[in-house]
Amino acid sequence: MSQVLRIGIAGLGTVGSALLHLLEDNGDEIADKTGRGLSVTAVCARNRNVDRGVDVSGYTWFDDPVGLAESDDVDVLVELIGGDEGPARACVEAALSRGKSVVTANKALLAKHGASLAKLAEANGAGLSYEAAVAGAIPIIKTLREALSGNRVSRIFGIMNGTCNYILTRMEAEKISFADCLADAQRLGYAEADPTFDIGGHDTAHKLAILTSLCFGTEISFDSIYLEGIDKITLADIEAADQLGYRIKLLGVAQQTETGIEQRVHPAMVPKTAAIAGIDGVTNAVAIEADKAGSLMLSGPGAGGAATASAVVGDLADLARGQRVPVFGKPAEGLQPYVRAGMRLHEGGYYLALEIADKPGVLARIATLMAEAEISLQSVVQHREIEQENGKPLRAQPVIIITHETTESAVRAALERIEADDSVLGTPKMIRIEKLS
Amino acid sequence: MSQVLRIGIAGLGTVGSALLHLLEDNGDEIADKTGRGLSVTAVCARNRNVDRGVDVSGYTWFDDPVGLAESDDVDVLVELIGGDEGPARACVEAALSRGKSVVTANKALLAKHGASLAKLAEANGAGLSYEAAVAGAIPIIKTLREALSGNRVSRIFGIMNGTCNYILTRMEAEKISFADCLADAQRLGYAEADPTFDIGGHDTAHKLAILTSLCFGTEISFDSIYLEGIDKITLADIEAADQLGYRIKLLGVAQQTETGIEQRVHPAMVPKTAAIAGIDGVTNAVAIEADKAGSLMLSGPGAGGAATASAVVGDLADLARGQRVPVFGKPAEGLQPYVRAGMRLHEGGYYLALEIADKPGVLARIATLMAEAEISLQSVVQHREIEQENGKPLRAQPVIIITHETTESAVRAALERIEADDSVLGTPKMIRIEKLS
Repeated sequence: MSQVLRIGIAGLGTVGSALLHLLEDNGDEIADKTGRGLSVTAVCARNRNVDRGVDVSGYTWFDDPVGLAESDDVDVLVELIGGDEGPARACVEAALSRGKSVVTANKALLAKHGASLAKLAEANGAGLSYEAAVAGAIPIIKTLREALSGNRVSRIFGIMNGTCNYILTRMEAEKISFADCLADAQRLGYAEADPTFDIGGHDTAHKLAILTSLCFGTEISFDSIYLEGIDKITLADIEAADQLGYRIKLLGVAQQTETGIEQRVHPAMVPKTAAIAGIDGVTNAVAIEADKAGSLMLSGPGAGGAATASAVVGDLADLARGQRVPVFGKPAEGLQPYVRAGMRLHEGGYYLALEIADKPGVLARIATLMAEAEISLQSVVQHREIEQENGKPLRAQPVIIITHETTESAVRAALERIEADDSVLGTPKMIRIEKLS
Repeated sequence: MSQVLRIGIAGLGTVGSALLHLLEDNGDEIADKTGRGLSVTAVCARNRNVDRGVDVSGYTWFDDPVGLAESDDVDVLVELIGGDEGPARACVEAALSRGKSVVTANKALLAKHGASLAKLAEANGAGLSYEAAVAGAIPIIKTLREALSGNRVSRIFGIMNGTCNYILTRMEAEKISFADCLADAQRLGYAEADPTFDIGGHDTAHKLAILTSLCFGTEISFDSIYLEGIDKITLADIEAADQLGYRIKLLGVAQQTETGIEQRVHPAMVPKTAAIAGIDGVTNAVAIEADKAGSLMLSGPGAGGAATASAVVGDLADLARGQRVPVFGKPAEGLQPYVRAGMRLHEGGYYLALEIADKPGVLARIATLMAEAEISLQSVVQHREIEQENGKPLRAQPVIIITHETTESAVRAALERIEADDSVLGTPKMIRIEKLS
């Protein structure tokens, strides 16, 4: 171990450049805190001749990230390339297998190969840190991996995708449609040209998979996550939620149940009085329910160059001080197999929105179908205003149903029968209500 | 270092007993996570024969905490006695001077002797951890001391006293007076029989002094904290705040200014839209503004046996893994002298409530006095309803003034002149408005 911690950075996009800026700005302070300097010795990116607003001529340049990882001048690899295969995976494995610690912001890589990378790291005495991979500057990994060591977590849930939260917040605040909002988000740079990865919930699912492993000591199981995006959420849903005292948020939730661990990403109605309902715009938040610590919530910027670089440097400072924690909080060999709690066993309240034909007896029939499925209703609202088309009222009547706590399988069974009823037009909409105290 | 980490606990009150319960409940999990067991070997309390709901007969009993700290069977001292002198200080010093690490929940001890204890710990290669001393289960110490190592903090502020927040929340929710609320809080065990320490802001100030040192790398200076409690807050203030879009919270704030570091504890008006305004009841929250990470907020239970024990165990787990971080984030010898930013230089908006005689020209005179002090007004509200006494309207008219940003010295000068005016009855009330984005 040299006096300074020699860092090789693979990937010089937004976060990589911000990391160089951060170390320039606050490097002396960091050295004070860690007792040794953090010194970038080598960098690697696809294109050497891009203006990054920071001079990289003083660092050894590598075209190949594996070469950078293997360099004798590099003690720690910072992987900021992204992607769950290819050069990112190759350079991380190259570093770990040589006993060099890795700091990464790569959630996809961890969600897919977390367990094997953890074993590789621990077998070689290397650290693998990834605070930047989940919820940007929010120290959620450190909190779960270290601070809550004395706890058993029962549920973790969070708003972990700024794009989705920005869209939902603006739809509500400005009464605009999903499509208009998405277009705006793309124009402002909050959403990618191809937004599927964010909007569809995949990004949230990557982060959730990592948190699940940390909370429950289980092997990562990204493929088991129940996944639903926000693309079907309409302004009408948001307004109905508002009237009922709820907000709609895209949540990632992992929860211990009697049959296993539920992992789900879907739009959820949360009571306006719950702290997580107040998280607006691109801000992220993660809430933890633990047996001893109780209910905690951490919020802050979930993305952005400087915020993500802050998380990377937190990990680097730990490594500089010689701190070493098992990758997923306990030795990778001891992680338990993930036991999936099937989504059909999910218990909770449900919001259902139907369009029914404007004729007598339909509501009674729906109520009967729900009763036959043993679902009890908390409220039924038949909207006063009937939607107009070309100045003429439509024949369909929107009906909003809020159920008491029931099971997903009961709701799905009821919805199948309701959908088959010829007085119900179109496909019923269902949004889960997250139970929060 | 023995295979297990041998722990001596000094103080077996609520937190000490909860710690024993926690280690009983989750000890195996913790050993999994840390790679070694945490084993309580010795305990110490004033009275051996109290029923604590947990069997202590298996531990070596000490009547003297210094004896416990010095015992060869103790690797780490957990100090849960409390108080800034006497046995707490003596046993902590005894442990540290022998190179034994200490975990403490004692905010008073740290606020008074933090700098010298940090030097003692570091000179002897011992750790001194105190997550439990500030905001219970919320990992604010770890966040500042480790996760935000790459940042310069510009401001930290928080709700760090559950008693005060419980009272303010209930006053607002149930429209009851401070006195009635306090009596209720005492009955429910949320407030001490002598509530001065909480209500007067001293408890918050102890915690703030510790956070200031961690955020700004300065020596602890508890005596420099500007201190104002919540005992003068009336239901009328809370209702006026509500109408103006604010809530009143007891905040501890430390802030870098041009002339030094402001440390202040006082009731503050916070916009209802700010996240910290939503923190209700006994919950605590701490918000951080940092140059790279941006704005973060952490919330959760600030007190209670299990929550505080969770924080203690987080610290013990770090010690078990061999993690060692400088007590205040950087070596104690390098902490800078604290430079106080005088409260008269404080800049912000102000809420002023006056009672004026019901005669012409008074409001104009007050507005003139404010203008002469170069304070510009954002709004002036003369209450429609005049308070009644025995069915007859009082002669006094309540007037609420909200100022634009100004200085404390200007406001105090204006208030002196206003108070001297014989059309103003009683003492004007002043509450600072915390600037939040």
